[in-house]
Amino acid sequence: MSVAIVGAGPGDPGLITVRGLELVEASEVLVYDRLVAPELVARAAGATRVARDALTQAEVNDVLVHHGRRGRAVVRLKGGDPFVFGRGGEEVEALLEAGIPHEIVPGVSNLTAAPALAGIPLTHRGTAAQVTILTGTSGDGSDLDYERLASTPGTLVVFMGLRRLEHIADGLILHGRRVDEPAAVVSKQSLPDQRVVVGTLATIAGLAADLPSPSLVIVGDVASLAWQVRAAAALAA
Amino acid sequence: MSVAIVGAGPGDPGLITVRGLELVEASEVLVYDRLVAPELVARAAGATRVARDALTQAEVNDVLVHHGRRGRAVVRLKGGDPFVFGRGGEEVEALLEAGIPHEIVPGVSNLTAAPALAGIPLTHRGTAAQVTILTGTSGDGSDLDYERLASTPGTLVVFMGLRRLEHIADGLILHGRRVDEPAAVVSKQSLPDQRVVVGTLATIAGLAADLPSPSLVIVGDVASLAWQVRAAAALAA
Repeated sequence: MSVAIVGAGPGDPGLITVRGLELVEASEVLVYDRLVAPELVARAAGATRVARDALTQAEVNDVLVHHGRRGRAVVRLKGGDPFVFGRGGEEVEALLEAGIPHEIVPGVSNLTAAPALAGIPLTHRGTAAQVTILTGTSGDGSDLDYERLASTPGTLVVFMGLRRLEHIADGLILHGRRVDEPAAVVSKQSLPDQRVVVGTLATIAGLAADLPSPSLVIVGDVASLAWQVRAAAALAA
Repeated sequence: MSVAIVGAGPGDPGLITVRGLELVEASEVLVYDRLVAPELVARAAGATRVARDALTQAEVNDVLVHHGRRGRAVVRLKGGDPFVFGRGGEEVEALLEAGIPHEIVPGVSNLTAAPALAGIPLTHRGTAAQVTILTGTSGDGSDLDYERLASTPGTLVVFMGLRRLEHIADGLILHGRRVDEPAAVVSKQSLPDQRVVVGTLATIAGLAADLPSPSLVIVGDVASLAWQVRAAAALAA
């Protein structure tokens, strides 16, 4: 494989996969996202390291195709998992069009890591059997369909929703969700400064107002399970 | 940490996290799921190894609490991610009730790995901005709400849906989904005998009838993107 699209996991460098780290260490060209742990970038000791931030998506595609065509060991290291609200798809399409062999190494997604590290199971026997995942703004830039979301059973997980959380909570309440429905925000998941805030649809935007990105919003009864919060409260008591 | 709840990833032993492998190798007691790669179980060379299969959930909880209380390095190694349709939640609750310190190490979930390895992005610019995840039978044993699911936008991902796939596809079509809506099944994701089948709601149950578990069903326009299938077809042509 000359080009590998690798998920770096949620932030903690220990949460990359064994295969992913192996490829990073052997890479000759590393193109990395801003949110990838610096410790992982440093492991690509022999590689030309390219920050993705400075490039457009078309330029990223061009870099991968250019070096891939020359048979170099190229790693595209992306935060979380490459295919969950990432643009791994566009990069794979560019490689396929150019006929360049590639490998996909999935990563631990924030979608699953943030709840797990906050002690919030997305599904829980007797509590939630379905999960709906969305971004804070819908794909085409229009607003969310609050009427439909308010009546959707199970857990809601919102990527990139923190800055619009008051608006989102209002929309859900206006369309029939309970004001006291549990909601949680996990900020900087897996990092030493991870924070978990648990409240209700009525209170969560205020409670989470000062949290830094990246973050994940979780709405539903499972949010009240947040064990680590309970455990921390028990220790403090 | 005396007890660690660790996600082993989707099957390929290289897809465990670096931190997860470190804990497995240092474990004194390892309780492992049936679907965990034997290569990973073997890495716990110095541990008493306990197959989860032979135990009830209550017995698993008891084993973790018993050894955890004695300060042993205990690892509970679970397929995929511990908190996505796993019962990691119940195990953490048992540890919390017993006051035993524990660590949660998220894993690569089948939810994200299977689509990624099949070249199917769950979300894709212009194609899908929302994902709904459910099990083939709803949590309380009743049937799925096909009317609601048929009108849900974006991608549907069904865990444990293969054996009831004809029923599920019929239910979606009866309530208004297009018969030619793309659908895919990924079987034994990440393993050497991984298979990906792509069809439509009308054809998928027949096409996937003989595939072995574990598997994941993906319904929605993103299924037609399945790059690896297209790439394989191009190679065969």
